[in-house]
Amino acid sequence: MGGSINTAHAGDAGRSDDRPALARMFAPRSVALVGVSGRPGSTMARPLTFLVEHGFAGEIHPVNPNYDEIDGHPCHPSLDAVPGPVDLVLVMVPAARVIEVVHQAGAVGAAGVIVFASGFGETGDAGADLQTRLRDAAREAGVRVLGPNCQGLLYAPASLCATFTSAAVRARAPREAGVAYVGQSGAIGGSILDLANEMGLGLTAWASTGNQADLDLVEVARALVDDDAVRVIMLYVEAVGDGAAYTDLARAAFERGKTLVVLRSGRSAAGQRAAASHTGAMLGNDAGFRLVSQRFGVIQVEDLDELLAVAAARAALAPMRGRRIAVVTTSGGAGSLAADRCAEHGLALPELAPVTRDALAPLIPDFGALANPVDVTAQILGSDDAFGAVCDTVGADDSVDAVLVLLTMVVGDNGRKLARDLVRTAQALDKPILVAWLAGHDLTAEGRAELRAAGMPVFASVDGAVRAAARLAQAAVIDAAPSKPRIDRARLDAVLAGGRLDGEALLDALTVSRPQSSIVNSAAAARAAVAALGAPAALKLAGGGLDHKSDIGGVRLGVSAEAAEAAYESLMAAARAKNVPVAGVQVQSMIESGVELVIGATAAAEGFPPIVTVGLGGVTTELYRDTASALAPIDADGARALLRRLRAWPLLDGFRGAPPADVDAAVDVIVRVSEAMAFGAGRIGEFEINPLIVAAAGRGAMAVDVLVSPPAAVDSRDD
Amino acid sequence: MGGSINTAHAGDAGRSDDRPALARMFAPRSVALVGVSGRPGSTMARPLTFLVEHGFAGEIHPVNPNYDEIDGHPCHPSLDAVPGPVDLVLVMVPAARVIEVVHQAGAVGAAGVIVFASGFGETGDAGADLQTRLRDAAREAGVRVLGPNCQGLLYAPASLCATFTSAAVRARAPREAGVAYVGQSGAIGGSILDLANEMGLGLTAWASTGNQADLDLVEVARALVDDDAVRVIMLYVEAVGDGAAYTDLARAAFERGKTLVVLRSGRSAAGQRAAASHTGAMLGNDAGFRLVSQRFGVIQVEDLDELLAVAAARAALAPMRGRRIAVVTTSGGAGSLAADRCAEHGLALPELAPVTRDALAPLIPDFGALANPVDVTAQILGSDDAFGAVCDTVGADDSVDAVLVLLTMVVGDNGRKLARDLVRTAQALDKPILVAWLAGHDLTAEGRAELRAAGMPVFASVDGAVRAAARLAQAAVIDAAPSKPRIDRARLDAVLAGGRLDGEALLDALTVSRPQSSIVNSAAAARAAVAALGAPAALKLAGGGLDHKSDIGGVRLGVSAEAAEAAYESLMAAARAKNVPVAGVQVQSMIESGVELVIGATAAAEGFPPIVTVGLGGVTTELYRDTASALAPIDADGARALLRRLRAWPLLDGFRGAPPADVDAAVDVIVRVSEAMAFGAGRIGEFEINPLIVAAAGRGAMAVDVLVSPPAAVDSRDD
Repeated sequence: MGGSINTAHAGDAGRSDDRPALARMFAPRSVALVGVSGRPGSTMARPLTFLVEHGFAGEIHPVNPNYDEIDGHPCHPSLDAVPGPVDLVLVMVPAARVIEVVHQAGAVGAAGVIVFASGFGETGDAGADLQTRLRDAAREAGVRVLGPNCQGLLYAPASLCATFTSAAVRARAPREAGVAYVGQSGAIGGSILDLANEMGLGLTAWASTGNQADLDLVEVARALVDDDAVRVIMLYVEAVGDGAAYTDLARAAFERGKTLVVLRSGRSAAGQRAAASHTGAMLGNDAGFRLVSQRFGVIQVEDLDELLAVAAARAALAPMRGRRIAVVTTSGGAGSLAADRCAEHGLALPELAPVTRDALAPLIPDFGALANPVDVTAQILGSDDAFGAVCDTVGADDSVDAVLVLLTMVVGDNGRKLARDLVRTAQALDKPILVAWLAGHDLTAEGRAELRAAGMPVFASVDGAVRAAARLAQAAVIDAAPSKPRIDRARLDAVLAGGRLDGEALLDALTVSRPQSSIVNSAAAARAAVAALGAPAALKLAGGGLDHKSDIGGVRLGVSAEAAEAAYESLMAAARAKNVPVAGVQVQSMIESGVELVIGATAAAEGFPPIVTVGLGGVTTELYRDTASALAPIDADGARALLRRLRAWPLLDGFRGAPPADVDAAVDVIVRVSEAMAFGAGRIGEFEINPLIVAAAGRGAMAVDVLVSPPAAVDSRDD
Repeated sequence: MGGSINTAHAGDAGRSDDRPALARMFAPRSVALVGVSGRPGSTMARPLTFLVEHGFAGEIHPVNPNYDEIDGHPCHPSLDAVPGPVDLVLVMVPAARVIEVVHQAGAVGAAGVIVFASGFGETGDAGADLQTRLRDAAREAGVRVLGPNCQGLLYAPASLCATFTSAAVRARAPREAGVAYVGQSGAIGGSILDLANEMGLGLTAWASTGNQADLDLVEVARALVDDDAVRVIMLYVEAVGDGAAYTDLARAAFERGKTLVVLRSGRSAAGQRAAASHTGAMLGNDAGFRLVSQRFGVIQVEDLDELLAVAAARAALAPMRGRRIAVVTTSGGAGSLAADRCAEHGLALPELAPVTRDALAPLIPDFGALANPVDVTAQILGSDDAFGAVCDTVGADDSVDAVLVLLTMVVGDNGRKLARDLVRTAQALDKPILVAWLAGHDLTAEGRAELRAAGMPVFASVDGAVRAAARLAQAAVIDAAPSKPRIDRARLDAVLAGGRLDGEALLDALTVSRPQSSIVNSAAAARAAVAALGAPAALKLAGGGLDHKSDIGGVRLGVSAEAAEAAYESLMAAARAKNVPVAGVQVQSMIESGVELVIGATAAAEGFPPIVTVGLGGVTTELYRDTASALAPIDADGARALLRRLRAWPLLDGFRGAPPADVDAAVDVIVRVSEAMAFGAGRIGEFEINPLIVAAAGRGAMAVDVLVSPPAAVDSRDD
């Protein structure tokens, strides 16, 4: 579906229509409403009313054997009695009769049906069975199904309003800005639609996908990414069944310069319970979803108001290219609060450039502030052009990526004037201006109307505005795969071809260093073993519950080949003296002290790419969750960025005067593990090095212990 | 000032008035407006207009030599020409003339003056000088000063509106609920006033304290705590200069059952820069402020909308007595989002009691959810009483402390009916009901009006409601001081009486265990030293750059008195063999392995009590900021609670099958350190044990290293 969904054939009543099914559903030539109610006020009367009120230009065909006509439209007894082609069928019959209507829709050549009824997968085993049969029926009949248990769709370019949500009553696109919504929850969708209208944000497209028996939100959103009329897509997501399809959606949006803003629920344990009981859906792999979103610059938000505000800001304002923000405020107090919130959300408030400060000085009273936050004080509002000039000046400063304007009691005409200045500045600026207006609506109605007309979101709290700025500053993290793989894929394949996964063999195939070790039973063998290592070794009593070897003198460090025989004898003597049974003496290459890391990797789950994770070794990873993850494979820059994201990074970077660790060596291991996961796809389930001891710079890193497991059994899905 | 501020004398024009100055300012018999403008529309004409419009019943005296009368009020040439007593003087002259008016106010017996002018401490050195002279003038004249650079005050019981903020134009107390606001920032105060009115929350009292040359927000709030008309006080705080006064305020509010809700700004570095440039005030000690607030149940919020919503909820609803919440929603998706937000904000969503679920089952459709969140589905809204019955049933469940109701598109009459049910349920319930309505205002206006009339806040986002619940669940942390001190105060005093602070002597005085150690130079001395310790000892080569003693065989552990001579000789032989110069052999009591903690304590700062802090030892405290603090002294329960708050607590509790640590011993040390800080007040600046090694249960804790420093020099304040 290239170009606009709305281009081909819509409104053409001829029989042939070669558009994809989704295009025919969004912009149908005709809509049939099966089971529509003729009772005014009934929920199932609304879709007909909405279609007419929104000015749908195609044919509208009520289908209900109990009526001859409804609201002036001839009413047909059944679908096959409808004259002319039918592209879209709204199914308003109870669950038990839905499958029958789907078959009829297929018979008349419909592209798709929208099933409003509940009573399917969300209700238990019987409902789940019915849903499976609905999906099978749809495939058999050759029609696509939106729903069941959904609220339908809107598509403004075709004036299509095929829903029963009461939010649609006023959804007349006051200002269409290329923003779409797709989500599973109909109730959330209704709220989004109503709140968008309140903001003055007319949605270009809106779809509630409900139980997703056939069409899911990813497929619907993917179609909208290709629609020229859509620039920003809001997604409300509970489960993403197909990670590969989501990855394709995110990549396509990124490549076409479209913005996805996603609200995902059900991540906490309680949230998952709620989501599962709600849709009957299995929850997906959050990490894969999160990392794919991050890689392609999908903006992730946590609440409805954020979803709307961020989408509106992306539609109306220039993009934000970094995390540096300037605050301009009529209240020093509000500026101070904003600075606190910026610190919490990881935004920087840089000092403004000297030229900016010089330009501001004549505009702002003595007791204002030229630092960032810029406190213009309330007095400036008396002056005709000063506030606009301040915003222009601050906006032009190259040291900031966005301007946050915090207004307090700027009311009436002052407010209108100021809002007009803000709109003018915002429209000329190559960075976003976010406005929080900390005052009631009555006294500020005129100013708010100006901003609303320009599509600029107005925040009701300092935190809301700062949080939105932090979201807008999220950039795609393009962790490039290594241009030239570091590992020898033939060696990897050879190891993986064996029946049993051998961690040490895998490390050797990846050329990751690990300590060499052997157990000897004679002084001569000890000497030979140390000589074979080619360097001083550690000798330790081996076997027999030796928890505290050093307490009984059971350890000798830095033993040369020459000293090995004496050390062997002395260890064995110590064991005899303490009457401790031993299995011999372990000869091990000396492990330098260093920073202990954990390098873990897990296989692709649910179609998402594999993930590589780094953390500090020891107990802290578990206690402090100080880990960083990326999609595998990653290159050296990506691996280094991962390490830098650890709060423990200072330990690697030379903490408290310690020498820096061999980060290059650690990076090399991370890259190799990530490549092993990617190239060994499907053959390795989990791969963990714990610990990887990273010695001082130039002295390498050594994998002390390794764990590899095969992939988990494939999900027993029903398809 | 007991009872109500408004009781005595207000409106009584007789000469004598023995009420405290603040009472006379809030409920004056008369108000003089010096420098009031007669030009309609001028900012400095507003206070007169507001006084009249708000129905102030006392005398109103404009003072301005340029007018004979203003708006029908006789205008006097100077303060001493005003007939009758003057309680309150509004000073509307420029900064340079303010001091002159203060002297005149004193001469006519006024209780206080409100100084609106800016140009004082916020503008630089000259302004700061002027502000000091203003304070001195006030003391000399015997009048209290609110301001300068403030916006004045309102007091609804006296119908006093002595401000120029445009927010006051509609501040006609639509529903007075006993909520007050006191804050430094006038602009924030204006916003709060306007937003409160929009919510339908009429403020009982409102004060903007500005630069606080004399009266500060703590003193004003303290007077309101004693006012029967006030139940909840919102505070906006930038700096608290006097920790003792703030502690007294917090304690008084706690003891009288009043709620303080505090918004503090300027905590981040950038925020501090903003606050400092804004008010010229030094920032206080955030830790002391935070801990005092926490101890007395002061609710700490982070934004204006939170400040208002939490105050409104505390005024209109029953208190929340724990962190367990039930979610009732018309949207499974919204419920799932709420569950996620609850998890983030530390609220539990318990399963509801079986009796609750049984009672809910007949009320909720099949595809709804009886778990928590309770998804009633949109269908229930058709049924007349079902939603109210669900809320009553869930509210009655003893396993939850609050009910969060999330509404989506519940519109028109359905919305009004549902809102009425919610008000009825809330008013009968002994726990709060918080409502988030995720829909535009137009379609839900009727329902919102019902909730507004009842004073119930309506949240615009899931996160806003959940965050407010988390704030409301903040309870006072009454860390009791030990009823019977554990430490021997005489021994402490003896150590502190010495000139130089000696950490080891301090530990001994507190009877905190520390390793004993001595250096010996003969085998016989080694034997004697081990015998003196009474237990096996560690012997180590001493002195001479021995970084890796164990590598050269320079350490012997678990040496008994009998084995000491041989161990001494063998160590010295090893030193000779390696040609390492040594100073002898160190004989040290064996330190058991264990969990390393840091126990730190810092002296009272700015009048706040001393603070004791615990954290995990090693580098993690610094990297992960995993510490917990409390005011000193604390008792054993408090100390134990501190340890449990560490994310590292599992290490003490038996992590991964390890034996639990001797928490009792650690608790004992924490209590003793906290007592030393409290009883040694003013004589110890910092006291840190790092590390305290906590051995396995029953095996004690040992302070390996200790640092003590004297108090910092006293702040060089100008008073």
